[in-house]
Amino acid sequence: MLLSKYFLPVLKELPAEAQVISHRLMLRSGMIRRQASGIYSWLPLGLQVLQNIINIVNHNMNKVGSLEILMPCIQPASLWIASGRFENYGKEMLKFQDRHDNTLLFGPTNEDMITEIFKNNIKSYKDLPKNLYHIQWKFRDEIRPRFGVMRAREFLMKDAYSFDIDQASAVQHYNNMYLAYLQTFRDIGLNVIPVLADNGPIGGNLSHEFHIQTENGESTIFYDKKFLNLINSKSLDIEKIQSLYAVAEEKHDPTKCSLAPEELASSKSIEVGHIFYIGSKYSKVMNAVVNDKHGNLVPIEMSSYGIGISRLVAAIIEASHDDKGIIRPINIAPFCVSILNLNILDSKCNELSRNLYAQLKTNNITVLYDDTEERVGSKFATHDLIGSPYQVIIGPKGAIKNIVELKNRKTGNIEELDIEVVCGKIISCLN
Amino acid sequence: MLLSKYFLPVLKELPAEAQVISHRLMLRSGMIRRQASGIYSWLPLGLQVLQNIINIVNHNMNKVGSLEILMPCIQPASLWIASGRFENYGKEMLKFQDRHDNTLLFGPTNEDMITEIFKNNIKSYKDLPKNLYHIQWKFRDEIRPRFGVMRAREFLMKDAYSFDIDQASAVQHYNNMYLAYLQTFRDIGLNVIPVLADNGPIGGNLSHEFHIQTENGESTIFYDKKFLNLINSKSLDIEKIQSLYAVAEEKHDPTKCSLAPEELASSKSIEVGHIFYIGSKYSKVMNAVVNDKHGNLVPIEMSSYGIGISRLVAAIIEASHDDKGIIRPINIAPFCVSILNLNILDSKCNELSRNLYAQLKTNNITVLYDDTEERVGSKFATHDLIGSPYQVIIGPKGAIKNIVELKNRKTGNIEELDIEVVCGKIISCLN
Repeated sequence: MLLSKYFLPVLKELPAEAQVISHRLMLRSGMIRRQASGIYSWLPLGLQVLQNIINIVNHNMNKVGSLEILMPCIQPASLWIASGRFENYGKEMLKFQDRHDNTLLFGPTNEDMITEIFKNNIKSYKDLPKNLYHIQWKFRDEIRPRFGVMRAREFLMKDAYSFDIDQASAVQHYNNMYLAYLQTFRDIGLNVIPVLADNGPIGGNLSHEFHIQTENGESTIFYDKKFLNLINSKSLDIEKIQSLYAVAEEKHDPTKCSLAPEELASSKSIEVGHIFYIGSKYSKVMNAVVNDKHGNLVPIEMSSYGIGISRLVAAIIEASHDDKGIIRPINIAPFCVSILNLNILDSKCNELSRNLYAQLKTNNITVLYDDTEERVGSKFATHDLIGSPYQVIIGPKGAIKNIVELKNRKTGNIEELDIEVVCGKIISCLN
Repeated sequence: MLLSKYFLPVLKELPAEAQVISHRLMLRSGMIRRQASGIYSWLPLGLQVLQNIINIVNHNMNKVGSLEILMPCIQPASLWIASGRFENYGKEMLKFQDRHDNTLLFGPTNEDMITEIFKNNIKSYKDLPKNLYHIQWKFRDEIRPRFGVMRAREFLMKDAYSFDIDQASAVQHYNNMYLAYLQTFRDIGLNVIPVLADNGPIGGNLSHEFHIQTENGESTIFYDKKFLNLINSKSLDIEKIQSLYAVAEEKHDPTKCSLAPEELASSKSIEVGHIFYIGSKYSKVMNAVVNDKHGNLVPIEMSSYGIGISRLVAAIIEASHDDKGIIRPINIAPFCVSILNLNILDSKCNELSRNLYAQLKTNNITVLYDDTEERVGSKFATHDLIGSPYQVIIGPKGAIKNIVELKNRKTGNIEELDIEVVCGKIISCLN
């Protein structure tokens, strides 16, 4: 992408509306713009991060056999009345009447609707287990939306739902998804800590949240210090992981925790995923039953699995930035490389920049070529701000000798290289 | 994909709720399910068609330099009050209050919001021309939603918006998008007819609609018979195309049409795209101005460009089906090939089916392998219904001699082939 043709409205000033660093950086780097309280537009740079996360989530959901569907934003109230949740959900549910005075709502979650879809279309144990997911915009009318897309009202969530014939199969399904979640966050480039959590209004009696540790987190988690090594080890072993103490704040009881003080860690964190073993809460009340192998009608066993896709975009920035801006994990970076042409009036700078740009594109490496007439200091600031993992800096003094600088955004390390080896070097860094 | 693991709830009966063929076939083939009047869930088969169309649209938008963004579903009423459209839009706009009594609406279109984004972020002629698009769910509270996703209330639209410094540049931009639209529909596998149309409530004084000819269309178009050859010719020439008579019904005036009766064709049709040269309607009222090269502030010239993505799924079926079911154009088919294993208890049938399935997947050909225990007649009916362009039918009598049948869904033509040559034959048919 040529920056001169792109839409990257970076802000030089600190936006007054933002309290936390991720919100400030997302506004400053032109990723999002606010349209109303807790409601945002995604500009090209922000949308590309969102899509990169979606691709990783899709890949891992498909790998575990989950099938993608898409339920609508708007749901009929009748469905929630049938499941008994309509009155209980509270003011976070955005309800309204259509022109014929039917009561509708903007879906805050989809257990009720997926249960209806299941019950109308699947009748036999032979079609189980089944796992369906969708990625759709949801709305929760938070009383005080804040922190940008971290706690927005309109937000993008991946929610999956599994259906099993009995508890044993349901728990195994739940554990497979637990592992798929760990792999998903690992692929994104995040260290997450899965902790035991409350099921809350979703229902059921087993639940885990997945947290990123950050200074500005709204949550607090408690965990066995051995956890970090285990989560970072190459092969994930669910029994070992789940045998260690790791809980959300509301589950932490110091009188019952058997760890010595020096074995116990606690940390501020951001919740980015939440999985629930629900059991038959919805299937019983909505009569979602299948024939088992003896011909008896049994209520299905359900679980649900959420990932806050739009929230993740902010959470990743909270976990990965410095005072100059964003530091993107490679797998979700909109551009792996920024080329900074420091003088677009210099024919040698242009030649080297254009050739490298073409070469990187030929190798399917995402690249933003800064071909604007901005001054040098402004170019440095912009590309540090937007956080491409690698920068290639091409100035007249080096260019005449075919020498350019390759900068690693994370370490700040700068290498002088012959232009001939730059593309190959970047390829080896990215793999 | 193994059919035994997929979610394909086909219906054998004619669904009572459906009046038109595309709606019936989409319900019967398990592509969609109704959740409320004019509101649908997309099951895996339907969603895959939607995504294939999105991919083609994205490709053509990017090719013409349009940048993808994503605006939210929910918009503040204040924006529409600023543009003067809030009171005029009528009952199709779904409005409601949030918990703090702010008036919001589910966006039916985005001219107002994109104008605000533009005006807050782009200040100079140097950043023009600019072209931004998004693909987002919209809501229009139709008084009588009907024909399934063809005239739904919640629907998926691609809307692009272009911004230019003056009329000459704006018209050239409009014409580039006109050609990009023709190419998009061609890539999908559709013959469309672009006709002059009214601008209506969007505003402006130049507009074209893109229509598919079908018996069940709600619209009527009139056009010079020479049009069809021109639209199907290899190189698209905008001057030639636009010089011919082709108009929407409301623009047709028999007293002013200079064509002889035998030169004029008319046809029922479905509108699948609509483009508008708007001019400065929104930029003037919302004060969206940029500095021109003399330092004067001038209102920007805008156009908007819509494609009804979810409606297209139905329109394509209206244009391409027979009495057995859907006939998918290859570029949007969820599966290019269905493998019908006629006897899953026969080891030779299983061996040939599994090997071919693996071979097609290795060649990146999308394939649905029917490994279910359904009876033969039911398998034939299901795969004719869902419309994969090619079927490979593997029965015990042929299998023992390594012979299978390759069926072309569109022509009905069946060839007996040695299993060894089937994959290669399919590859050559698809290219």
